[in-house]
Amino acid sequence: MTTYYKGFPQSTREEKLHMVNLDELEHEAKYVMPEAAYYYVASGAENEWTWRNNTQAFNHFQIVPRALTGMQNPELNTEFLGMKLKTPVMICPIACHGIANAEAEIDTAKGAKAAGALFAMSTYANKSVQEVQSAVGDSPRFMQLYLSKNWDFNKMVIEESVKAGFTGFFLTVDALVSGYREANLRTNFTYPVPLAFFNEWNGGKGEGQSVAQMYASSAQNIGPDDIRKIKEIADVPVIVKGVECAEDAMLAIGTGADGIVVSNHGGREVDGAPATIDVLPEIAKAVRSCDHRVPIILDGGVRRGSHVFKALALGADLVGIGRPFLYGLALGGAQGVQSVIEQLNKELLIDMQLTGCKTIEDIKHAKIDHINYSADW
Amino acid sequence: MTTYYKGFPQSTREEKLHMVNLDELEHEAKYVMPEAAYYYVASGAENEWTWRNNTQAFNHFQIVPRALTGMQNPELNTEFLGMKLKTPVMICPIACHGIANAEAEIDTAKGAKAAGALFAMSTYANKSVQEVQSAVGDSPRFMQLYLSKNWDFNKMVIEESVKAGFTGFFLTVDALVSGYREANLRTNFTYPVPLAFFNEWNGGKGEGQSVAQMYASSAQNIGPDDIRKIKEIADVPVIVKGVECAEDAMLAIGTGADGIVVSNHGGREVDGAPATIDVLPEIAKAVRSCDHRVPIILDGGVRRGSHVFKALALGADLVGIGRPFLYGLALGGAQGVQSVIEQLNKELLIDMQLTGCKTIEDIKHAKIDHINYSADW
Amino acid sequence: MTTYYKGFPQSTREEKLHMVNLDELEHEAKYVMPEAAYYYVASGAENEWTWRNNTQAFNHFQIVPRALTGMQNPELNTEFLGMKLKTPVMICPIACHGIANAEAEIDTAKGAKAAGALFAMSTYANKSVQEVQSAVGDSPRFMQLYLSKNWDFNKMVIEESVKAGFTGFFLTVDALVSGYREANLRTNFTYPVPLAFFNEWNGGKGEGQSVAQMYASSAQNIGPDDIRKIKEIADVPVIVKGVECAEDAMLAIGTGADGIVVSNHGGREVDGAPATIDVLPEIAKAVRSCDHRVPIILDGGVRRGSHVFKALALGADLVGIGRPFLYGLALGGAQGVQSVIEQLNKELLIDMQLTGCKTIEDIKHAKIDHINYSADW
Amino acid sequence: MTTYYKGFPQSTREEKLHMVNLDELEHEAKYVMPEAAYYYVASGAENEWTWRNNTQAFNHFQIVPRALTGMQNPELNTEFLGMKLKTPVMICPIACHGIANAEAEIDTAKGAKAAGALFAMSTYANKSVQEVQSAVGDSPRFMQLYLSKNWDFNKMVIEESVKAGFTGFFLTVDALVSGYREANLRTNFTYPVPLAFFNEWNGGKGEGQSVAQMYASSAQNIGPDDIRKIKEIADVPVIVKGVECAEDAMLAIGTGADGIVVSNHGGREVDGAPATIDVLPEIAKAVRSCDHRVPIILDGGVRRGSHVFKALALGADLVGIGRPFLYGLALGGAQGVQSVIEQLNKELLIDMQLTGCKTIEDIKHAKIDHINYSADW
Repeated sequence: MTTYYKGFPQSTREEKLHMVNLDELEHEAKYVMPEAAYYYVASGAENEWTWRNNTQAFNHFQIVPRALTGMQNPELNTEFLGMKLKTPVMICPIACHGIANAEAEIDTAKGAKAAGALFAMSTYANKSVQEVQSAVGDSPRFMQLYLSKNWDFNKMVIEESVKAGFTGFFLTVDALVSGYREANLRTNFTYPVPLAFFNEWNGGKGEGQSVAQMYASSAQNIGPDDIRKIKEIADVPVIVKGVECAEDAMLAIGTGADGIVVSNHGGREVDGAPATIDVLPEIAKAVRSCDHRVPIILDGGVRRGSHVFKALALGADLVGIGRPFLYGLALGGAQGVQSVIEQLNKELLIDMQLTGCKTIEDIKHAKIDHINYSADW
Repeated sequence: MTTYYKGFPQSTREEKLHMVNLDELEHEAKYVMPEAAYYYVASGAENEWTWRNNTQAFNHFQIVPRALTGMQNPELNTEFLGMKLKTPVMICPIACHGIANAEAEIDTAKGAKAAGALFAMSTYANKSVQEVQSAVGDSPRFMQLYLSKNWDFNKMVIEESVKAGFTGFFLTVDALVSGYREANLRTNFTYPVPLAFFNEWNGGKGEGQSVAQMYASSAQNIGPDDIRKIKEIADVPVIVKGVECAEDAMLAIGTGADGIVVSNHGGREVDGAPATIDVLPEIAKAVRSCDHRVPIILDGGVRRGSHVFKALALGADLVGIGRPFLYGLALGGAQGVQSVIEQLNKELLIDMQLTGCKTIEDIKHAKIDHINYSADW
Repeated sequence: MTTYYKGFPQSTREEKLHMVNLDELEHEAKYVMPEAAYYYVASGAENEWTWRNNTQAFNHFQIVPRALTGMQNPELNTEFLGMKLKTPVMICPIACHGIANAEAEIDTAKGAKAAGALFAMSTYANKSVQEVQSAVGDSPRFMQLYLSKNWDFNKMVIEESVKAGFTGFFLTVDALVSGYREANLRTNFTYPVPLAFFNEWNGGKGEGQSVAQMYASSAQNIGPDDIRKIKEIADVPVIVKGVECAEDAMLAIGTGADGIVVSNHGGREVDGAPATIDVLPEIAKAVRSCDHRVPIILDGGVRRGSHVFKALALGADLVGIGRPFLYGLALGGAQGVQSVIEQLNKELLIDMQLTGCKTIEDIKHAKIDHINYSADW
Repeated sequence: MTTYYKGFPQSTREEKLHMVNLDELEHEAKYVMPEAAYYYVASGAENEWTWRNNTQAFNHFQIVPRALTGMQNPELNTEFLGMKLKTPVMICPIACHGIANAEAEIDTAKGAKAAGALFAMSTYANKSVQEVQSAVGDSPRFMQLYLSKNWDFNKMVIEESVKAGFTGFFLTVDALVSGYREANLRTNFTYPVPLAFFNEWNGGKGEGQSVAQMYASSAQNIGPDDIRKIKEIADVPVIVKGVECAEDAMLAIGTGADGIVVSNHGGREVDGAPATIDVLPEIAKAVRSCDHRVPIILDGGVRRGSHVFKALALGADLVGIGRPFLYGLALGGAQGVQSVIEQLNKELLIDMQLTGCKTIEDIKHAKIDHINYSADW
């Protein structure tokens, strides 16, 4: 069940997970992942307030069950920028899946495909875009971009990705430097497995680098022009990832963004940033009031079908998960990733039936109460 | 004190309970009920937020004691749809009382009768409507309906119930599928004792079935027409159970409902649904502003006389209990059920005296403060 | 240090207390008082929410320190209905001080006198009004009234009290029956020492009676006429104790009350009643808008100089303490009671200096912030 | 690593600190400082609500990350009353640094200078103003004033300070008497090391005195005239320290104050005083609406770069720290003090990059959300 890359142990598990809920996976992954790798995932910036609050803040919103709707057999199918998806749950980018499983992004892509979910792969992936293409063909997938200071590198990433069937980009704008992540300092975390784009390009860069070192080569001053530059290189959708206010959503749309991800990078950057679910309503309102309506993705703290429901009801079109799928990857490979998505699907379908929502579109009109006390047991 | 049905141990206790409060019963019931049966009752959906919040949210409302009222000897008598009741506390439907006591619904009905309380029996009862009728004659009682996909079955349930002295129906509309109840998954719960209606009709169905299997045969697409269909079969009051917003209360009234139960199924269906006491005021306001005023029942988290008081003061006409009476049934049979109701009566009478409320009607005009902080120690 | 009344151990301690704060006394009193007596004091009704919230709710209000006031040497002297007092802290009525100390109300009266504080003695006192008079002469003191159903008894209490130098009454209107106090049920508490008025009148009644039995002989239907009746018997001030809303404050004033006590009986009656500090502002506003302005006393949860300050700033003229002085009585007799009051004085004087309040009157204009979150660590 | 002053152990550590965060220092300082000295620092008044709430209340405000700002290389340089500083973090006055390190204020001044931070030294310093001047030349530094009842003493302190290169004063107005600090009572704390100004002037006063004794000789009735008197003695800036409302900020400005410190003396005076971050916005609004705009400093509970950011964004020009630098002094002398400031700088720079704030001035226009729930895990 384990292989080794230069001494670093990697899970080789491939199995369906029989979980009761996603929170269990965080506990179980501790027994599979090395400590530094585990805490690279299971941690946030500074006091980890934002990390934890992302999940807790879902309690501020209540799903109102509906009566006498005469509805049955709700359906999860949805469309996103022309892609047909089987679930509104998507796989958000995380660097270096090889810390969880030897098959790394190949298995993640397979799991997402099996579940019919959109997969966004990180620039810091261990597997190359060609390897992923060989494994999953034309599955729905996007590439995430950490822009480098070096535009030759950026051009290479963009062009190779498009050639390898990644049909759009997530441009990360909320992680221009590394957040102050104490867990990484305590464990002296460095990326233990080569990052495909970097090794090809720079002969080994990536492997053995700390998070701070990786960020040192990335661009800090990302602005509207960068979106235009990306589009000049490849005429595909560019989604701006890491927006937490209406102003920035509109700025992104103005620059030509084809969508936005309401995200605080999983509480890994600014500690004290608002929970994404708390800012989603205001952002969704602004985006919808705009002629050039673009889709919205929310990520941050999603662990339950009811979280997915609340995010959709408050304005999201897709709902991203991060840490949980990586635990699934560690515990079950491609099937583990699929199991994680299907667990959320299962819980979500129950809430859809009980609120009379036949389709994902219907959820966007569901009734949500807002009682602003915490009740955070 | 114990008998066995095909190896499943059933309490045969019959005694008055000398409890200090209802919370004690949850702890004591653990020693009487088998684990899977106990957790079938003592659990909620997903994270159990709604289950726990149902009780905690009563703290959001404060009872204002009143001075110089010149009142004494408050009275609990009340009327509900023409029935004379000795208490505003009622027994809400729970499936399969045989998990708590060998006498099952017969004892529950006896206990309710002794206390002068309305009893609503589940479609999933272990005892037949005829057995209950033999035991309690013309006690005030309603039948709960889980509509089946099969209307021949529904017709049979409705007609037999009416024939056996059940003078109205609670139509459950908030549990069209099973909520995601982790406790049942962990214990592999199946109904251990035959469910009377199902065994008569289908030769053994019910017994040994999981909750999910039972729901599979029930109707998911319940709508306004179903209320009309029920009324065509039997011209008796139909109360819609499982309403958490004013819109649905009005829809139910529009379809001809004779009352509504503000309920989230005890936090067993949508986790993240609002506490019933939090939504009651808005529902009561809507219902009262309507010509066709119907009575309102609230259930969810009621454990104290002060909870009953708050629910009545905020718009309920009756206040239902669920889990506590089942613990009473396990610990003391019919007398246990009676003890549970009388404990709430005792606590309620003190609050009535101290707020100057002579009658249940007076409580509906009591002064309630609302300080929206949790203070949930 | 201990004597026995028919086997019931009574403290005979007489000493100054070297406490750091009042909360310490609750812990120490456990070693001095028998269990049932201790929990008779250290408990509240039902879930004890109101008991605990009385203290916690002081956190909802913040004292704003003031700069450049040019003030020094603040003073605690105050007047109340013509009485000159050395502190705004007063001793509120509690039954049966003999559970804390063999000298019972005699020592309480002595301690209050030494501190220059108003003492209100309970109808259920162990010591007679004559014994108290012999001990403390013309100290400032009032008698509390639990009205009996028997007006001959009430007349006797009123007339003997006035004759013995009690210059006014606290008419208790918030405890017409006993609250649901679980601690008393668990310990089978009965009054272990004779209650002076009852023994004189009824030959032993009081001693050995439960709280519920005592209340059984008291009047439940107290109304406006009772205030008038008391005034006909003795033309002295009558203060209505147990008001938690503006409506009742005005009703009491209308009936001729000479003052009101904002109180919920220390959380011992209606559990779920608002914290007294939460309702004080609205009551004070109503009372002050009225021509016939009467003084206001607040009790409930006062444990700190900052609590006294907040109560005065939000509208109280005096601030009563209950449980803490009884612990002081158990641990140090008359000097213990005095120590408790002086501890609050010491803390209060610091807050007065730091807010520029020279006098108790100045506190009534102090600036208070209100941030409605709990922060109840 | 330890020397002794008349038996009192003093750290002589001089080293850079390799901390992960400032909270760690509080735990580590326990092993270096004697118990009474440690708790003199690590404690607050009464229930310590204000002490703890100063830090917790930062959670009420959220930093909104910004996207597409096109910014890089943020800078910490700032100006304050004409002084060039390398950081907006400053060292707020604490008495008797000799409890932390034998080099006392000399090391603090060196550490502050190395970090380019403003240092405000206490009247109760162990080292003389001349000793500090010898050590750090013309570093940016102010003297704090506890006004004595004796103006000859005050004149001496002011004149000697100015002569020794202290270019302005912090006039403390929020600590006219000692707050009720239980920790000091429990440990019988007295100042263990001579206080320079007091020993020179009074032959040994200071050393061996309790906090209460020290305050006994200080002026309680500080008012507007005192600011004018100080300015007559020395024509340098006077900053009023200890303001928690807009009214007092304006009063201070009216008297000629050149700045204000929003402070509650670290929760050591009025317990129940508001958190400084909670009152800052209203004070900043008032001060900015005034022609005679003066700078604002905030202290109280600052432990994180994100706290510094929030304070600047809500209206502060500088942000003071107290306890943390003293722990740094105990653990690492001058380098320890420098390390503490640089840790905050490091965290702050990350938040500046992620919010697009190039300069300290930019932070003052940053977007802050306010969700008024506690979420205080």
